[in-house]
Amino acid sequence: MNTHPARGMRDFLPEDVRRRQYVMGVIAGVYQRYGFEPLETPAVENIETLMGKYGEEGDRLIFRILKRGEEGKSGEADLALRYDLTVPLARVVAQYRAQLPKFFKRYQVQPVWRADRPQKGRFREFYQCDVDAIGSTSLVVEAELLGAAADVLQGLGFDNFRIRLNHRRLLSALLTDAGIDASRQASALTALDKLDKTSPEALTADLAARGIGADAAAAMLSRLRKGLTDDVALEGAAEVREIVRLCEYTPAAGRITVDLSLARGLSYYTGAIFEIAVPDLSGSLGGGGRYDELVGMFLGQDVPACGMSLGLERILVVMGERGMFPPTLNAAPADVMVTICNFNDGVDELELKAEALQLAAQLRSGGVSVEVFPEVTELGKQIKYASSRSIPLLTVIGSNERVARQVTVRDLRTRDQFSVDRHVVAARIGEQLSKSGA
Amino acid sequence: MNTHPARGMRDFLPEDVRRRQYVMGVIAGVYQRYGFEPLETPAVENIETLMGKYGEEGDRLIFRILKRGEEGKSGEADLALRYDLTVPLARVVAQYRAQLPKFFKRYQVQPVWRADRPQKGRFREFYQCDVDAIGSTSLVVEAELLGAAADVLQGLGFDNFRIRLNHRRLLSALLTDAGIDASRQASALTALDKLDKTSPEALTADLAARGIGADAAAAMLSRLRKGLTDDVALEGAAEVREIVRLCEYTPAAGRITVDLSLARGLSYYTGAIFEIAVPDLSGSLGGGGRYDELVGMFLGQDVPACGMSLGLERILVVMGERGMFPPTLNAAPADVMVTICNFNDGVDELELKAEALQLAAQLRSGGVSVEVFPEVTELGKQIKYASSRSIPLLTVIGSNERVARQVTVRDLRTRDQFSVDRHVVAARIGEQLSKSGA
Repeated sequence: MNTHPARGMRDFLPEDVRRRQYVMGVIAGVYQRYGFEPLETPAVENIETLMGKYGEEGDRLIFRILKRGEEGKSGEADLALRYDLTVPLARVVAQYRAQLPKFFKRYQVQPVWRADRPQKGRFREFYQCDVDAIGSTSLVVEAELLGAAADVLQGLGFDNFRIRLNHRRLLSALLTDAGIDASRQASALTALDKLDKTSPEALTADLAARGIGADAAAAMLSRLRKGLTDDVALEGAAEVREIVRLCEYTPAAGRITVDLSLARGLSYYTGAIFEIAVPDLSGSLGGGGRYDELVGMFLGQDVPACGMSLGLERILVVMGERGMFPPTLNAAPADVMVTICNFNDGVDELELKAEALQLAAQLRSGGVSVEVFPEVTELGKQIKYASSRSIPLLTVIGSNERVARQVTVRDLRTRDQFSVDRHVVAARIGEQLSKSGA
Repeated sequence: MNTHPARGMRDFLPEDVRRRQYVMGVIAGVYQRYGFEPLETPAVENIETLMGKYGEEGDRLIFRILKRGEEGKSGEADLALRYDLTVPLARVVAQYRAQLPKFFKRYQVQPVWRADRPQKGRFREFYQCDVDAIGSTSLVVEAELLGAAADVLQGLGFDNFRIRLNHRRLLSALLTDAGIDASRQASALTALDKLDKTSPEALTADLAARGIGADAAAAMLSRLRKGLTDDVALEGAAEVREIVRLCEYTPAAGRITVDLSLARGLSYYTGAIFEIAVPDLSGSLGGGGRYDELVGMFLGQDVPACGMSLGLERILVVMGERGMFPPTLNAAPADVMVTICNFNDGVDELELKAEALQLAAQLRSGGVSVEVFPEVTELGKQIKYASSRSIPLLTVIGSNERVARQVTVRDLRTRDQFSVDRHVVAARIGEQLSKSGA
């Protein structure tokens, strides 16, 4: 029987989970300090909620779920797996508008699913860490989001990231100026988003496939290279300037690069867009922007919104490659292993097990984490097992200890060994752990 | 546009998420103290991994995902949503056997999906909190699992739960004795599992539908009511006695009731089975048992295993109804709100925003959580907003404060107000929070 996880999906063994939880903890901690609150939405959405929100490529990559019961026999799908965390947020804002605060600031750390072709570093199930502020057009929102992102990355130990900043209205003005029809601009931006990963020839071919001729493509690329000129009327430019200025007073100070070639693939952005870059990764560590019209698709009335998404998987890859995880994450599964040994002194096995469980309960009440070796076997084997699991201490109860109401504690790191009265064993083990601990 | 979550699925607003995270935190903390390590598996599994593991009812309730791309047009499903956390664990044990410890003890807190008819308290997406120990037939494992479950429930404030205990081999002997063929016993147990929720007549009808005649049904029910008799040879009984004895030395002491009518619906159990009951809930708060043959379905070689699952959703319902959540969970989204007010003293708005962001950054560095009111508007409106969000403190910078390098802090709980030098504002706010805080 095939025991691999499904294609593009991953199992996370304990060490992986600890690393993931560490990063998610730092992210949640920072977002809470910025006044964002946690939100969770279902993995499964009605298919109409998702379709048409991510552009045609997105629609193709949505996993669809078959109708259940008799109806399912038609092969029809009525549900779909969450594709990102932004569209569910827009649905939630529309659904609960009356009970949400005027400025709804939420973070959300949950998996999303995309039927992409799996490849190195690209998975079909991956976590997104999103943070969004709903309800204000003030650029304080953009500055706070970029400040929080910088705070997260600095908290994780990143020191050489840049935040690329651009503006959809500015891009749109450039495209119009290059002779690209408004109806084709969304498609052009999808192509343009691959600018830094593709050759000019491949990009021109891609644009041609989207109905944008070689002349317009050349004009557009030349304008992008030259940047802003005075004759391009750009209301976006003033916003970009204000965001850069405000960020000087946040942890994002000195991190911002205005980059006219930044496009972002998704079609729903309406204002500032941004992306986080580090030198040793070709993709980004996260990105986002303002999308003042998406909530309106659900509510029938526009609500301003701006947010960003951190790419948990990429952050983990870079941190792993650079060795950025704190060494304490490789902790043993327990502080102490309680052994159960039969020294043939006339105590039956049930009694030995009961004694071990009682000691374990006592230690756990004292705040010590305890593994009980479940089987009655030779002490040597049990010591070997504790060592193989990097458990620092183990306890032994033999005849002498039983008579004296004591426990023998062995430190497998230092090979220290001492006997201690039962009623103080938790405290004494606590001391030993802090004394020779890492 | 429909903005409801899909049928049987739920959105969790911030207050819900905080309650869920609190319970999951207590659970994870206890399991870690017992030496269990975290594991996570994908939401999506190959369909063959899940089919045939849960009995025929289970197979029908599995959500199936359509093949992607061109192949998807056939309406065929190759993937499915996780139905429980036990089968994925068995797959993981088979897949990573060589790198896992001999005694693999893991906990896993993740959602599962079932295409059940939604009704009060029954959802199509819900979390399970599973804890399992792989690799030992020792009954120390059962005792540790029941001890941990009792520790979790006591940690959450439950004081009147019972653990019902039974044994599959004991049940099987009873069924054989009642003349029920081995091939029909799994089906009979599925029916029997509803014993405490149904009438004897309905149960007899259900058994008849499963090919079990009225005489056999009556014999079985009468034996269940009378309990064990000497002439029934039951190896399970000795195990039940040992588990009860061992549990006396764990936090499950005094909580165990041997209950011959407990059957558990799933077909993969082979030994002890157990369920947690509280008086004010007709279902259980969790349950589990030993399943020494499930891993073998993946590995081709049996590996002993025993585990239990806590029903997070039911725990949350009971805790909500009984008011068992700590009041601190209803915390405000931030400690302080930084206002941005234009007092018409010649400072431009960009300057005012920059000043607010700088103060917020300073407070956050000092460990204070801060909401920045994003817009420049009247102070009265901003105070009203902070009150509506239960944010205890707010800051104001006017002309006098600006000149004196001070900040005015207002405590919305006590209506205290004081001005403080910028460089000590974080410390002074910390004091104020602890002084009049809840």
